Amino acid sequence: MSLPHALLIRNVRPLGKAPVDLLVRDGRIAAIGAALAPPAELPTEEEDGGGALLLPGLVEGHTHLDKTLWGMDWYRNEVGSRLVDKIDNERAFRHASGHDAAGQSLALARAFLARGTTRLRTHVDIDTQAGLRHLEGVIGTRSAMQATQQIQIVAFPQSGLLLRPGTEALLEQAMAEGADLLGGLDPCAIDGDPVRSLDVLFGIAERRGCGIDIHLHEPGAMGAFSLGLIMDRVAALGMQGRVAISHGFCLGDLPPPERDPLIARMAQLGLVLITSAPASRSVPPLMACRQAGLTVLGGNDGIRDTWSPYGNPDMLERAMLIGLRYNLRRDDELDVALDCVTYAGARGCGFAAYGLAPGDRADLVLVEARSVAEAIVARPVRRRVVAGGRIVARDGALI
Amino acid sequence: MSLPHALLIRNVRPLGKAPVDLLVRDGRIAAIGAALAPPAELPTEEEDGGGALLLPGLVEGHTHLDKTLWGMDWYRNEVGSRLVDKIDNERAFRHASGHDAAGQSLALARAFLARGTTRLRTHVDIDTQAGLRHLEGVIGTRSAMQATQQIQIVAFPQSGLLLRPGTEALLEQAMAEGADLLGGLDPCAIDGDPVRSLDVLFGIAERRGCGIDIHLHEPGAMGAFSLGLIMDRVAALGMQGRVAISHGFCLGDLPPPERDPLIARMAQLGLVLITSAPASRSVPPLMACRQAGLTVLGGNDGIRDTWSPYGNPDMLERAMLIGLRYNLRRDDELDVALDCVTYAGARGCGFAAYGLAPGDRADLVLVEARSVAEAIVARPVRRRVVAGGRIVARDGALI
Ligand SMILES: [Zn+2]
Ligand SMILES: [Zn+2]
Repeated sequence: MSLPHALLIRNVRPLGKAPVDLLVRDGRIAAIGAALAPPAELPTEEEDGGGALLLPGLVEGHTHLDKTLWGMDWYRNEVGSRLVDKIDNERAFRHASGHDAAGQSLALARAFLARGTTRLRTHVDIDTQAGLRHLEGVIGTRSAMQATQQIQIVAFPQSGLLLRPGTEALLEQAMAEGADLLGGLDPCAIDGDPVRSLDVLFGIAERRGCGIDIHLHEPGAMGAFSLGLIMDRVAALGMQGRVAISHGFCLGDLPPPERDPLIARMAQLGLVLITSAPASRSVPPLMACRQAGLTVLGGNDGIRDTWSPYGNPDMLERAMLIGLRYNLRRDDELDVALDCVTYAGARGCGFAAYGLAPGDRADLVLVEARSVAEAIVARPVRRRVVAGGRIVARDGALI
Repeated sequence: MSLPHALLIRNVRPLGKAPVDLLVRDGRIAAIGAALAPPAELPTEEEDGGGALLLPGLVEGHTHLDKTLWGMDWYRNEVGSRLVDKIDNERAFRHASGHDAAGQSLALARAFLARGTTRLRTHVDIDTQAGLRHLEGVIGTRSAMQATQQIQIVAFPQSGLLLRPGTEALLEQAMAEGADLLGGLDPCAIDGDPVRSLDVLFGIAERRGCGIDIHLHEPGAMGAFSLGLIMDRVAALGMQGRVAISHGFCLGDLPPPERDPLIARMAQLGLVLITSAPASRSVPPLMACRQAGLTVLGGNDGIRDTWSPYGNPDMLERAMLIGLRYNLRRDDELDVALDCVTYAGARGCGFAAYGLAPGDRADLVLVEARSVAEAIVARPVRRRVVAGGRIVARDGALI
């Protein structure tokens, strides 16, 4: 979207470095440097950054916009502890309540934007009960947010792929109707037939020419087994660089001699790893993965839904939880936590023109913080959010 | 402190239950019920609770007021990863900077109060370099806060007890000068001589007639060994009900057949367990401990200090982190997280007249939340904080 004017933001500190000015034209960063002059030929809006810390737009790598109860009546959670309890409870709840995935996903997307998230990947449930209803709602949200927030949609078989006949056709249809990626789920633990489950999944991806993002909750040896099957197919089908593993808890369970070859193979095949850094589960070793060359990015997973009351559409809070989970205390370690919700997030999801350099899409977050580490631990209100070149939020509220 | 008037708070929902009014006189809850009448004989301030959720004053069971850099220049953390690195770094930093424990502890205590914490246990470093300087500062804070916030001070040998000759005498002097409890620290891993270390520690407690709160970071079998030695001394000296174990990570490492007898013995001896529920460490099993009859309470540990940039003087946020660590998702499970920072906290620390019943000290927190679970996950700004019968904070700011 082209804008009829330029935006000159004065006195901001990119990632905590020395103050600069930043010129935005046509939705992109045109220049960044000391004492920039407004362009002579264009009306220019000037904004005083007040010495705020400047971050690139935040990136949510894994959430479920369609599931959220954000802004609704309080949902009293009385759900059982098994994964299938949560899946069945949710499907029944949404069927009975006529859950409005369009309105709910839009409300949460806007809450994300107000807190500085300008790029976002969401999984959307596809099942034989709801069909493509949730997908259609979230596609509406993706359109509504287009000018300010880039949303990737993953068609996600939350209730299983093989488990409920008809799901394969629905996923294929979801891709045809505009989902960006194909989702998968625990081929052993949920589908019960890992080879056939993955063959069906990768078959759809091959026919549709799309990338894949697989929820892999399976622990230890079972997860490692599924991960191996996944990587066999990535190699066989030439899908290097197009597959993401969400969670990958198994990588937190295995001893290094078993774990490290898996991580090395993931890096070699260009898989990326997406983590919510849950405090109560094993998690992949962040630093070892990064050292192996793997891109690791962060996400909230569900936010205030029938699964869990937790979550907050604030990627600085997610960075804090990543920092706490991985015991990142030094300032240079907290830079890694930020990377998970900024650059690594954009790289892992494939969001283009991301960053703080000239030519990048002008997605910017200004916060009152002296350092990146302080921005993460204090999570201050977003003074300004710029998205696609326009100021979209001031002091935490959308304009 | 007796007040010249009464306070009548209308329309609040105790722990999310049906709306009631609450009458405060002489710093205590005088009555709680529907449509209370103001007392005829006293001028009465009326406050509209607006249907807010009512919580008892929050309880911080383990922090370090003297260490915090809250409100100071950003401290760039470049500290090594070992425990001794952090201990030595801090002692050197405070010595070089002339760290103002009085001013810093007061700033953090006030920040706690603004967020609803009306009872608080803090450890205070006693070492041969600083002597009793930090203690004197925090005793000043305890006095300054007396009318609104009850502070317990633990004299804490952060740099070791045996390790630095002279510390025993300093601890004894700290108790004489007004510390409330005696602190301890890893008798194997830090002091290197568990039997002698604990004999010295319990010797001071016996002479001074005080309770003990021991930092026990030691993992697995080593921690279990130290815990056994501690319990032998509790039994021998008749100190049942007067000893707290902070952290107790070992209880999260041991298999249940080794762990459960330890927990049962702890319960039998009236030990209490204090946890910050760290996401990156093993933690004691919360539910198993509670089922065994052990009181488990929550604390932040250090807040924004040279050890770590994390922490927030908000016990609802700590309850959230407890909930995340222990995967508490159901509303009835989140009641347990709240208990750790309210009733169990007060019981475990021995804070008297605590709660929401007539006769209890009028320490109250009002938040806009539909349920206890929402108060924890959303951590809304505190609409009102009442401490010792007076409104001390409105909308997050101290009056
Ligand atoms: Zn998910
Ligand atoms: Zn501590």
